[in-house]
Amino acid sequence: MTTFAVIGAGAIGGFYGARLAKAGHEVHFLFREDADHVRENGLEVISPAGDFKVHPVNSHEAWDTIPQADVVIVSVKSTVNSNVAELVPQAVRPGGSVLLIQNGLGCEEEFAKFLPAETEMLGSLAFISSQRTGRNEVTHFDHGQLTLGRYLPNYERAEPTANMKAIQEAFASADVPVELVDDLLSARWQKLMWNLPFNPLSVILDALTDALVNEGDWLVRELMVEVRAIAESDGRDIPAEFVDLLMDATKLMTPYAPSMKVDYDNSRTMEVEAMVGNPMRRGIANGVPVPHIEMLYRQLKFLDDRIASG
Amino acid sequence: MTTFAVIGAGAIGGFYGARLAKAGHEVHFLFREDADHVRENGLEVISPAGDFKVHPVNSHEAWDTIPQADVVIVSVKSTVNSNVAELVPQAVRPGGSVLLIQNGLGCEEEFAKFLPAETEMLGSLAFISSQRTGRNEVTHFDHGQLTLGRYLPNYERAEPTANMKAIQEAFASADVPVELVDDLLSARWQKLMWNLPFNPLSVILDALTDALVNEGDWLVRELMVEVRAIAESDGRDIPAEFVDLLMDATKLMTPYAPSMKVDYDNSRTMEVEAMVGNPMRRGIANGVPVPHIEMLYRQLKFLDDRIASG
Repeated sequence: MTTFAVIGAGAIGGFYGARLAKAGHEVHFLFREDADHVRENGLEVISPAGDFKVHPVNSHEAWDTIPQADVVIVSVKSTVNSNVAELVPQAVRPGGSVLLIQNGLGCEEEFAKFLPAETEMLGSLAFISSQRTGRNEVTHFDHGQLTLGRYLPNYERAEPTANMKAIQEAFASADVPVELVDDLLSARWQKLMWNLPFNPLSVILDALTDALVNEGDWLVRELMVEVRAIAESDGRDIPAEFVDLLMDATKLMTPYAPSMKVDYDNSRTMEVEAMVGNPMRRGIANGVPVPHIEMLYRQLKFLDDRIASG
Repeated sequence: MTTFAVIGAGAIGGFYGARLAKAGHEVHFLFREDADHVRENGLEVISPAGDFKVHPVNSHEAWDTIPQADVVIVSVKSTVNSNVAELVPQAVRPGGSVLLIQNGLGCEEEFAKFLPAETEMLGSLAFISSQRTGRNEVTHFDHGQLTLGRYLPNYERAEPTANMKAIQEAFASADVPVELVDDLLSARWQKLMWNLPFNPLSVILDALTDALVNEGDWLVRELMVEVRAIAESDGRDIPAEFVDLLMDATKLMTPYAPSMKVDYDNSRTMEVEAMVGNPMRRGIANGVPVPHIEMLYRQLKFLDDRIASG
């Protein structure tokens, strides 16, 4: 059995970790100040696929009690990556993997630079709607599949590894489908096609997905066009029809607030750099004109700085 | 003595009209549903230069009782220009003038097309801070000078006319300095250098002038650069140093909410077209890249449409 440690046991890590634990895997969670509470009360998941509770839980208050795992799942908010990256290596067994589950671009690098050569850096995108709804409770609303790829410097393509296949198997036993890809960057750009327009615009225009996809059609599409151009400059072509496809899919969604808006509305700092700043800088470095993304980035920074300064 | 009619007797028209009436000029005001109230109670101006009350007032409920004047001052919000333009000619004596006091670009044309050839179309920019604070009360906070130019199709340059000099004299008698210019378009572009960035950004970022000029420095400057480029494409050069000058001047101002933010915060439609849409279209027509203005325009339209639809 593959063993896991979960750093950032919230909406994402809490859900996947609980599923893995329920499936019989050894999973250690870093719960910080909630560690005692979770240890006493168990970790509960509310889900349309069936509520369940994990009890007992390997609940840790600090890093030093977590035994080295085959896989360290990192699912903190990208804004705190720099506080976490240096601590991660101690939690991975030699030859194990770090599995980063985050949106956006360019976050793997921050972790990879602290890892010994024999440890694999993996990147993952979660297609999931979930929320932490209590100190020991995660509510899962919909979806859950993961896209998983190996991270090599500059997002070079890489064949799926034995570690990745073991992870896929472990998640499958927990009813979580994992798609292995040999081009993590391509997966990231595709997801950014949606995330980069909808997340910031929902904040700046105080709007849900339905208003943006209808009344904000021009804005969303212009931003998508720029994302596509950057992806292309990275050698990752996205078909033009993907724009219409995303718009149509969004029209079918129940209107909701993207994660960045949830953060903003709760006066929490937003994932500005992973979601907008890093893609923008990639475009600028590649000589792609990204005026709309840049404007969006500066507006978002303005709002985020205001939150950060209270 | 020059006679006046004031259409849009609010913060701007109410103030200037009251000053002119106090100086002994015949001024007729269109007060709509407040006509009786103003007629009974007079028109009051609260001002650091001295409070005063005009009583009796030529207060009109509708257009048909207003006698033809030498000068019809139009100071409605630009968003209702299309409701007013056709009615204005009836209030001007043959050979008289229509004096439009509005910010932005391209509003004179809407009025000019209904005017007989012998009526002069004049455009004016008010440098004033005032507010309508009651049904028969205007509060004047600061400034008051006007820049006045003749409007000819496509903003051709035009020498000051005898009518304009008479207006300047009348306003001077009311302690309002009026600068006559032979290039109205140049004056409009210069004022747009400030208005186009600060008004929309104050709405979109929910910020006052001080936050924008400091934390929003990049955004404001990028927009100013585009405004400058459009002005240049119109043959109206604005020195590059004007950007720093406006930034520095804004830093010295008491922080305040630009008019567009006041409108937005009160759920009133905003002057999107005069202030942003028309300048943007001028840039596009002249082949000037205006991606940041276009993004701003679309964001503002999104917010304005939401207000318009309740």
